[in-house]
Amino acid sequence: MTNYPIVVEVSLRSGIADPEGATIERALPALGFAGVANVRAGKAFRLSIEASSEAEALTQGQALADRLLSNPVIEQSTVRIENV
Amino acid sequence: MTNYPIVVEVSLRSGIADPEGATIERALPALGFAGVANVRAGKAFRLSIEASSEAEALTQGQALADRLLSNPVIEQSTVRIENV
Repeated sequence: MTNYPIVVEVSLRSGIADPEGATIERALPALGFAGVANVRAGKAFRLSIEASSEAEALTQGQALADRLLSNPVIEQSTVRIENV
Repeated sequence: MTNYPIVVEVSLRSGIADPEGATIERALPALGFAGVANVRAGKAFRLSIEASSEAEALTQGQALADRLLSNPVIEQSTVRIENV
């Protein structure tokens, strides 16, 4: 059994309103940032999963993402293995 | 000028208490997930930056992350270019 470092990124599905991203986008010109667009806010979770293979760690990570970390009705999640 | 897709990941610095991550970790055994540890919760922002080079886009993204998207006292941010 190996410990795999997993990153779960949860973001709103396209078409779902993102008020947090819209607010950030509106604040940017006042701070002097031009040319920034399409701001979408989401969450990122880092965790380590003990599994016998990379594939098993990713499967378990995706199950965890769908059941606990995201709302699959409005959010999508991607899971990857990434060393810190 | 090209539009670069940027991902800003904001996470709590190590040593800073992460109650959200701790709560997720405590909930896992009841859902049947064993062997998951070191859960840390953070945020991920996706945006596009218009710049003349990758380096300039990353510099602007890092400035934006430090000034608007994170609290550098307790959070660290990483910026990368990533196609969706």
